Amino acid sequence: MVDRLDPIFSPNSVAVIGASRQKGKVGYAILHNLIVNEYQGTIYPVNPNAESVHSIKAYPSVLEIPGPVDLAVICVPADAAMKAAEECAKKGVKGLVVITAGFREIGGAGEERERTLRELVRTNGMTMVGPNCMGVINTHPDVQLDATFAPTPPLRGNISFMSQSGALGVAILDHARNLNIGFAKFVSLGNKADVSGNDLLMSWENDPDTHIILMYLENFGNPRNFARIARRLSKKKPLIAVKSGRTEAGGRATVSHTGALGGSDIAAEAVFAQTGVIRANSIDELFDYAMSFSKLKPPKGKRIAVVTDAGGPAIMCTDALIQQELELATLKPKTIESMRKWAPPEASLTNPVDLIASAGPEDYRRALDAVLADDNADAAIVIYVPPIVTAEVDVARAIWETAEKYDKPVLCNFMGRSEDSPGFVELVQHGIPSYLYPESAARTLAAMYRYHEYLNRREGAFPEFKVDKKAATRIVETAKQHGRKRLTEAEALELLHAYGFATAKTRFVKDAEEADQAAREIGYPLVLKAVGKDLLHKTEQKAVAIDLRDEKDLRDELAKMEKRLQKAGVSVDGYLVQEYVAGGKETILGMNRDKVFGPLLAFGLGGVYVEYLKDVAFGLAPITDEDARRMIRSIKTYPLLAGVRGEKPSDVAALEDGLLRLSQLVHDFEEIKEIDLNPVIALETGCKVVDARIVL
Amino acid sequence: MVDRLDPIFSPNSVAVIGASRQKGKVGYAILHNLIVNEYQGTIYPVNPNAESVHSIKAYPSVLEIPGPVDLAVICVPADAAMKAAEECAKKGVKGLVVITAGFREIGGAGEERERTLRELVRTNGMTMVGPNCMGVINTHPDVQLDATFAPTPPLRGNISFMSQSGALGVAILDHARNLNIGFAKFVSLGNKADVSGNDLLMSWENDPDTHIILMYLENFGNPRNFARIARRLSKKKPLIAVKSGRTEAGGRATVSHTGALGGSDIAAEAVFAQTGVIRANSIDELFDYAMSFSKLKPPKGKRIAVVTDAGGPAIMCTDALIQQELELATLKPKTIESMRKWAPPEASLTNPVDLIASAGPEDYRRALDAVLADDNADAAIVIYVPPIVTAEVDVARAIWETAEKYDKPVLCNFMGRSEDSPGFVELVQHGIPSYLYPESAARTLAAMYRYHEYLNRREGAFPEFKVDKKAATRIVETAKQHGRKRLTEAEALELLHAYGFATAKTRFVKDAEEADQAAREIGYPLVLKAVGKDLLHKTEQKAVAIDLRDEKDLRDELAKMEKRLQKAGVSVDGYLVQEYVAGGKETILGMNRDKVFGPLLAFGLGGVYVEYLKDVAFGLAPITDEDARRMIRSIKTYPLLAGVRGEKPSDVAALEDGLLRLSQLVHDFEEIKEIDLNPVIALETGCKVVDARIVL
Repeated sequence: MVDRLDPIFSPNSVAVIGASRQKGKVGYAILHNLIVNEYQGTIYPVNPNAESVHSIKAYPSVLEIPGPVDLAVICVPADAAMKAAEECAKKGVKGLVVITAGFREIGGAGEERERTLRELVRTNGMTMVGPNCMGVINTHPDVQLDATFAPTPPLRGNISFMSQSGALGVAILDHARNLNIGFAKFVSLGNKADVSGNDLLMSWENDPDTHIILMYLENFGNPRNFARIARRLSKKKPLIAVKSGRTEAGGRATVSHTGALGGSDIAAEAVFAQTGVIRANSIDELFDYAMSFSKLKPPKGKRIAVVTDAGGPAIMCTDALIQQELELATLKPKTIESMRKWAPPEASLTNPVDLIASAGPEDYRRALDAVLADDNADAAIVIYVPPIVTAEVDVARAIWETAEKYDKPVLCNFMGRSEDSPGFVELVQHGIPSYLYPESAARTLAAMYRYHEYLNRREGAFPEFKVDKKAATRIVETAKQHGRKRLTEAEALELLHAYGFATAKTRFVKDAEEADQAAREIGYPLVLKAVGKDLLHKTEQKAVAIDLRDEKDLRDELAKMEKRLQKAGVSVDGYLVQEYVAGGKETILGMNRDKVFGPLLAFGLGGVYVEYLKDVAFGLAPITDEDARRMIRSIKTYPLLAGVRGEKPSDVAALEDGLLRLSQLVHDFEEIKEIDLNPVIALETGCKVVDARIVL
Repeated sequence: MVDRLDPIFSPNSVAVIGASRQKGKVGYAILHNLIVNEYQGTIYPVNPNAESVHSIKAYPSVLEIPGPVDLAVICVPADAAMKAAEECAKKGVKGLVVITAGFREIGGAGEERERTLRELVRTNGMTMVGPNCMGVINTHPDVQLDATFAPTPPLRGNISFMSQSGALGVAILDHARNLNIGFAKFVSLGNKADVSGNDLLMSWENDPDTHIILMYLENFGNPRNFARIARRLSKKKPLIAVKSGRTEAGGRATVSHTGALGGSDIAAEAVFAQTGVIRANSIDELFDYAMSFSKLKPPKGKRIAVVTDAGGPAIMCTDALIQQELELATLKPKTIESMRKWAPPEASLTNPVDLIASAGPEDYRRALDAVLADDNADAAIVIYVPPIVTAEVDVARAIWETAEKYDKPVLCNFMGRSEDSPGFVELVQHGIPSYLYPESAARTLAAMYRYHEYLNRREGAFPEFKVDKKAATRIVETAKQHGRKRLTEAEALELLHAYGFATAKTRFVKDAEEADQAAREIGYPLVLKAVGKDLLHKTEQKAVAIDLRDEKDLRDELAKMEKRLQKAGVSVDGYLVQEYVAGGKETILGMNRDKVFGPLLAFGLGGVYVEYLKDVAFGLAPITDEDARRMIRSIKTYPLLAGVRGEKPSDVAALEDGLLRLSQLVHDFEEIKEIDLNPVIALETGCKVVDARIVL
């Protein structure tokens, strides 16, 4: 077998261990679903207390089954499940789907039990989904496997869906059916003791049945692998994710729910942005996106035409389009003229094209034809508010027949219609997504356009800089040997220098004499900073003096500072004498090693911008040059770097270079936990690190 | 009759002018709706070509009707409509609902026609809704008037709804029925030639049938009246609005659609914030809000309990609650212990209370009872993901029966269930709103909490300052007499001084001699600014010198500046010598007279904060002291004013005072179009206007 997931998705035979005769039991529902959805292989119920279940001969144990068993679905209580799994191993079963709960999610003995189960699975070369899951589905006509206890089977379609919450997954399948959204494969991941989300991504990457991947995630098992796989995969197929646990409280709820670390949402957001994963903010957005991504190709541009029979919803739609950074297409004069020939005089034919309430199927056909033929429009949203004489099926037919002629996405909003109204059904069955609200259509089209942009984004590269790794290692090792968790500022600057950062020339001195000496080496103007373990907020503690012009300045300030700090009872180890970098813009480059995600790089403008306005961009290392570009340009205050009010622009390329070097540094030194370069002065040419804090 | 809207909402007899025998015609649909919805008065079809319509005797003209006619619904073409309206006047008809289109919305002759119609209505003391509308509804059992051509009549309920888009209104009524949302009154406003939205608000303010008011607005007829009425009304009843035309393109679509000025959305947002109007961002949010506001009282606090049988949706719900600035309730230990007695060991009993998939109706009953009894919880959201054995109606009953015992709002999310599922129906029919998605419930609860906060907000007052209005008038008049559109900076500062603003001492001088003289009067340190019509961006043009310490400094800088500007070919009229206000924080106070809304006040921190971060608060004058307080505290950079990093706080009260004085100033002088006080330096005590631009 090529893929270790094959016994899960395409087994020739399935044993249901815990098959039950009692309606309402999980063991009944799973067997029932396998049978009524016409699984194409052989089913073996396993139940020691029944001759047959659901009119199929039952076996007391998997070991008694005469033929080979590819997949066993286990739904007996936890203790019995362990024994069943052992028997499966003995029998040579290749795949397990363990529905049974009572493992890691309950802690204590459950964790131990899960370890044993995983051990058993791995030792015997089996593949396992779960435990504590709701099962798997493969709708392929050659297989037709519904090994879940979901009340309704999904429709066949091109979406594969993994859910870290079984209940939510089942609810989504249920609702998706109403929306005519079909699935290729479905997996409830459960505790992910063996098969992980990343395993599924790799399997679905080359699955011809899977055109789109949906994920409901509460955490990432291995975020770095996820990032690597997603970056590659999302270039081939849209990857749409709902990631819950956004807020801290939500994150805590995640922890209590699955016993896994929630991970920081900022990091998740950074991963999604870097890898082209389309994030849905809520479950209804997930449905909205799934509907259009599964039926349409993304628009090639952001100029949208709106065709409507009522002004109100068209305005709502336009508002949503603009908020989502799309544009209203400017229709060509000849397009407008062509519509003038048949449209009623009251119609407004500039975009949005308002055909007024009297519009019928033919009006829609001609208007949609006209706007789709216009090179100035990349996509269309059609709004229809059924008037008294409703001809919604005819309007729907006019829309899909016209849309078929063009290679541009068309989304619909039939206002006030529900998901079982005939117009809606007519549309979705002919490949046109339809929404209850104009805003949903607009938001979805925007997500599709962002995906188009991602697909066309320049492929970034991971540059490798020549650095003095030896010197850096020496500095880190020295600190470690001295049992220090934090590099001194001088060490930190030296380390950065070894990695090719421009740093402000700096000397550590003990007293005024040494300061003089250092000043002569560096040259004026200078900055003087007191150093000591109590000196954490140097500015507030008045332990910094800037722009010292000459020896007298330096001596005076040093004396004053010494006196001031002595009086305040602050112990001083010595001073830093540093080159004064005048002008430029203060920026911050930083890194924080997230417990789950690993090294998270940060960039922002210094001072209040970061602290109060939270105007910071994040990226998960390693980053590409393209990521660095995007990060720096994504902050709101970027115009200040680009140059405003006649100022010259700062050297943004030097900042990008800095971020990339930081990425390399934190990759090379796993022991570095935190880096805070604050400020890095961005100059017209180059940038210079002035203050550095590095924590091991 | 007490209310001029009575003939519209409670007529004893209705004439349908244009009643038609032909199905599909508006004139058929309206008559049909009146009949089948059992209008409690007398109906008179008017149709010159029919003996009877819909089995009721028809009359060739309204003049031929034997009895009195309270209301006439006109749906004949525009030309005939004018004649019909004249006949109605002659007949003594009190109310008109004009469905007919072809008035202001088509421009030209239509505008003229509308003027004539309004003239006729006003001269004859009639009341008119429309033209170009979809009709009106009153569900009161004594009236049962459905004078619309909506396909389905609304349910009886406590919401009154006005819509500026007829089509959207009808679509909303249609969909609301599916959601079991009922209405008291409905009005499609049309062109608002006579009855305006404000008229309806005033009428519904004291209407006992109306508990909640919904509005779909595209513009405000008279925004100042709206603000005045809404401020009062929203203390009595929730006022929920969808205002479209948010973005500029959306706004343009509004203009083409109704022929009315769209108005600035910033101003609309300010009005809503000041007047407690609850803004829904989309049509689905409007439904979400309507459902809960019509069934529940707002929560008294923001601590929310979540009860669930599945972790995933609870996390999504928690995320949404926190994003909306609500909190997860911290349940009391005794609440948790009480649940421990019966809950399965795997259940997680801290909030969110996760009863796991096996939870049945009794589990829900006991858990909800426990959390609602807990003083630490102000409201609850109940999530239910139907497992295999669905007992959703029983769960629904357990929820509403328990909720009834407490005075706390309970909202539900039955995942994956549609709006016609039995659990949903059981809930909404017993006063419990239910949502398809957990996020919708969370967002709605947050809107209800914000309304609670508004109701408990301190009543603001409009302070009146003693000012020197005479002096101010003199300055404005002088500028007008000279035909100047803009006050000089000296005039502007003088005007502000007359209104009690502290301003930096300033003198206009022609040359170095005069500058010396002025400097002696004001005292050093000083600021020197060149003045001239080309000097619009003084900083960029290097036409400002600050912190001049003595006569030599002043003379040197003046000479250098003169030379520099001469070289640059910039003509200079003279100089301002100004007190140098050292320290403090730069703020901006401003006013811009919006074409539709009137004077819009603005406040923000100076420099890049306003320009690039758009961190500005707006308020529509006149503002109360409470509005001023809120405005200043609502900017993201407010902490900088409150004092950070050990700094002393700025005098925020002085800034509030400044905003209130500005409010009074722009109220007193209608001719002031723009004010830009940039910067106003906020000091530890007081604040000082340094630069002022006033445009007439």
